[in-house]
Amino acid sequence: MEFQMNSTVKFKHDTKLLKKAQQAKPQLLSQQIAPKRLVKIISDQHELFGYRAVPQSQEVAELDQLSFGKGDQIVLDLGDHQVGHFQVKINSQGSPMDAPLWLHIVFAESPAELGTIHEEYHGLLSSSWLAEEYLHLDVLPSVLKLPRRYACRYIMLEVMDTSPKWKAVFSEPLFIAESAVALKQVTSLNSGDVLLDRIDQVSCKTLHDCMQDVFEDGPKRDRRLWLGDLRLQALANYATFDNQQLVKRCLYLFGGLTTEDGRISANIFTQTDPIPDDTFLYDYSLFFISTLADYFAHYHDNETLQDLFPIAQQQIDQALRLVNQQGQVVLDSKWPIFIDWSQEFDKTTCAQAVTIYALKQFIELAKKMGLTTASYQTILAKLTKFAIEKLYNQQRGLFVSGDKQEINIASQVWMALAHVLPTTENHALMETTINDLFPVTGIATPYMYHHICAALFETQHETAAIKLIKSYWGKMLEYGADTFWEAFQPEKPAFSPYNSMAINSYCHAWSCTPAYLLRKYLSIEKDN
Amino acid sequence: MEFQMNSTVKFKHDTKLLKKAQQAKPQLLSQQIAPKRLVKIISDQHELFGYRAVPQSQEVAELDQLSFGKGDQIVLDLGDHQVGHFQVKINSQGSPMDAPLWLHIVFAESPAELGTIHEEYHGLLSSSWLAEEYLHLDVLPSVLKLPRRYACRYIMLEVMDTSPKWKAVFSEPLFIAESAVALKQVTSLNSGDVLLDRIDQVSCKTLHDCMQDVFEDGPKRDRRLWLGDLRLQALANYATFDNQQLVKRCLYLFGGLTTEDGRISANIFTQTDPIPDDTFLYDYSLFFISTLADYFAHYHDNETLQDLFPIAQQQIDQALRLVNQQGQVVLDSKWPIFIDWSQEFDKTTCAQAVTIYALKQFIELAKKMGLTTASYQTILAKLTKFAIEKLYNQQRGLFVSGDKQEINIASQVWMALAHVLPTTENHALMETTINDLFPVTGIATPYMYHHICAALFETQHETAAIKLIKSYWGKMLEYGADTFWEAFQPEKPAFSPYNSMAINSYCHAWSCTPAYLLRKYLSIEKDN
Repeated sequence: MEFQMNSTVKFKHDTKLLKKAQQAKPQLLSQQIAPKRLVKIISDQHELFGYRAVPQSQEVAELDQLSFGKGDQIVLDLGDHQVGHFQVKINSQGSPMDAPLWLHIVFAESPAELGTIHEEYHGLLSSSWLAEEYLHLDVLPSVLKLPRRYACRYIMLEVMDTSPKWKAVFSEPLFIAESAVALKQVTSLNSGDVLLDRIDQVSCKTLHDCMQDVFEDGPKRDRRLWLGDLRLQALANYATFDNQQLVKRCLYLFGGLTTEDGRISANIFTQTDPIPDDTFLYDYSLFFISTLADYFAHYHDNETLQDLFPIAQQQIDQALRLVNQQGQVVLDSKWPIFIDWSQEFDKTTCAQAVTIYALKQFIELAKKMGLTTASYQTILAKLTKFAIEKLYNQQRGLFVSGDKQEINIASQVWMALAHVLPTTENHALMETTINDLFPVTGIATPYMYHHICAALFETQHETAAIKLIKSYWGKMLEYGADTFWEAFQPEKPAFSPYNSMAINSYCHAWSCTPAYLLRKYLSIEKDN
Repeated sequence: MEFQMNSTVKFKHDTKLLKKAQQAKPQLLSQQIAPKRLVKIISDQHELFGYRAVPQSQEVAELDQLSFGKGDQIVLDLGDHQVGHFQVKINSQGSPMDAPLWLHIVFAESPAELGTIHEEYHGLLSSSWLAEEYLHLDVLPSVLKLPRRYACRYIMLEVMDTSPKWKAVFSEPLFIAESAVALKQVTSLNSGDVLLDRIDQVSCKTLHDCMQDVFEDGPKRDRRLWLGDLRLQALANYATFDNQQLVKRCLYLFGGLTTEDGRISANIFTQTDPIPDDTFLYDYSLFFISTLADYFAHYHDNETLQDLFPIAQQQIDQALRLVNQQGQVVLDSKWPIFIDWSQEFDKTTCAQAVTIYALKQFIELAKKMGLTTASYQTILAKLTKFAIEKLYNQQRGLFVSGDKQEINIASQVWMALAHVLPTTENHALMETTINDLFPVTGIATPYMYHHICAALFETQHETAAIKLIKSYWGKMLEYGADTFWEAFQPEKPAFSPYNSMAINSYCHAWSCTPAYLLRKYLSIEKDN
């Protein structure tokens, strides 16, 4: 996916909607986290990312017994992934401090980020996201309180220089973790399956760490409100923390910041007054409808529906302009579809399916609004007809995609989720997908794996869905995940969409959905 | 000179004296300095330090017309050396800011410091003194106000990274210069000689920039109160800014922080509650007497003399313990003598002369205190007798030094300043020095050059003194000095006592004395 730059696009600022977003802004909860261990990061080719954290003989309480001269370093291990602020007391030991302390502090979600911090960075995203600070302290003792927020489990304190006459001593390191929610609010899954319970816990922790002023995509990097992530986070949130205000806030932010022609940006920057990004994604725009529909289904909040339905309608109307006479969605290169980070498969049939998926939700919302939906029903029929007649290969029992009639998993999954085929055929579609297209390959994100699992559950393939959850999310646990990742391709486990494992986000909201899937569909299973 | 570490030394804190030091603390004056030019630093082997500042086509006022992406840089030229704080407005241009700004700011007194900032540093002093900051700015626009103080003429703004979607824009750069004094307080020298007037102006600027909360040695590095520097700064100050309080403050700081056995540290750290360093220099300790004597001579401040005379007496008594039966000063390796950064000449005869120099001043102070001075007169006679009988080579008309009977300039200079010989012979001593030992070589500091010039003036060699001032300080001007330097050896102009031109201090107080020498001795010349 290439960077979009649409600097001429003009945005509206709907002050009424933005005020409601502001009113729903959460007061963050904070928790003091003392590091659990002192570790060193060592190179280890047996580890997935090449590095391992090795406990040191000293306890964290003995940190002040160690002194650090030029080039010395220590790594604090918080014991789990955290998001928040860091502070530490620093003193000098030896002769009076005859030069500043030149300190390098690196925050890392994974040991690999520390192991490679001194290597040249060649990732596609800005190196400014590497969570490191170089600091001069002119006066010690001091309590260093860093003003920026970090997402990390590991904190490396590296002394760049003192002087030959004194060394630095650290004590009372403290991480003040922040979130809009508390983990204790969540009732344990208690599935009876240890692995599923662990996957659920880590999913909840992942969601927790991404729930800040808004639903962030990842607290390490980007730190923004992405619509595609929001939709899944909101679903997981309903099943766990059940924080209505935060979803509402995010919906109003998107609703208040459309372009002058009504389009919704793929994401919003929220560190200042909210600023919509100049990136537009076809599927993400439509998911405004889905997120509003899911929200309404959960809370029956009529005021929000009344406020935001016009925005939802603009999204479907924009999308439907791309539908040709035959009922085919013909994407515009300036409005690409995301589906997954992988560029290995054709996404045109997914576009058809996502349109149907969102249009169905829109029609339901329109009915709640008491509006007539005939024209939308007409186009839905056309879209569906095209999908079945032109994209569905009856012989194979699978959907094809693009000029080359490519058969890929994503097309089947989105067609299944859109319920384009009748229930029995929809079940068969995923059955054939399992038989002909599994094991899953070429898919790089928990985001798309979520949709595969959701499609399996939706078509009564619970066993296959649970197997996939266990193998995919379970594999991340095997690799040492404290929270679930932005990108993970099991057959290429060291894949980075940005050509750098150091810039990947290891706590990424769109990977938290087992907490939703297991709660939603396991209970159905139990009920059966 | 090696680093001294005397961690077992215990210091007294005389609260009465320290309170008086605190009361004399100045309120700093500040002045807003807008950069004068935008420049780039280019490598140029014809320049002394290998780099040159080249003006850019844009004016500073047009800075906000430029945008800076990854790797781009610009250098602001303040037009002169300044000490203080820096601020600049920073904005983003292009798409919304989708990553932090990762910024590198380097402050430099000389172009060479910028030219070599990305090279590996191998200097003897801590790299933490290199005046650079790496900063992440999460939110733009911002006014970046750096909390640390810098000494610089050049400020490099180097964008380490933005993102492909936006660039950084800088505007309204401002340097808030600070000093305890204002340059306008000084009456111009008006010597009638353009070069001497320019040397005087730069001397005053050098002193001005070093006059902060205390007389600092150099505002770029160390930033401390050194006794050897203080003595010369105070003399220059009496002739120019005439700030009594700052000298008084520094005398009380040294007086209030002796060791338990009464010794004075060579320097004091003053950024926090004052802390004496654990470095002791023989000549610097004795210069407490000289500085007090000079201060009293100028202000006739009896209270200060009463308070600090006991400390002065401790210094001379400590030194006189090293005088053996023959009247020879036998230095202790734990209490080395400085004289100059050069290690190329023997300093034992200098030690003898400095002792005589300070003892004479002490006796005068003792008389002011109404004390009997017979015992000190006796030892003065012994010291003088030894100097003349054992160290003075009558045949050569010069003093020898050390076991190898080395003849060096510093010995003659200090013996001349101590007036060990009668006036006529003292004149002849420096005459012979000029004839036999000039041109000066092997001397690395303006500090020692000051003493050569002072000795020449004191012995009525005004022409030679002025010639030396013009050739030595004038040479620094030729090399582009905005303020005079810590170290300069004309025959080895790229000498650094720390093996790194980047760590040298280019505004160093002990080089400011032409302002004193010219005012004191040129007026005598005029009077004649």
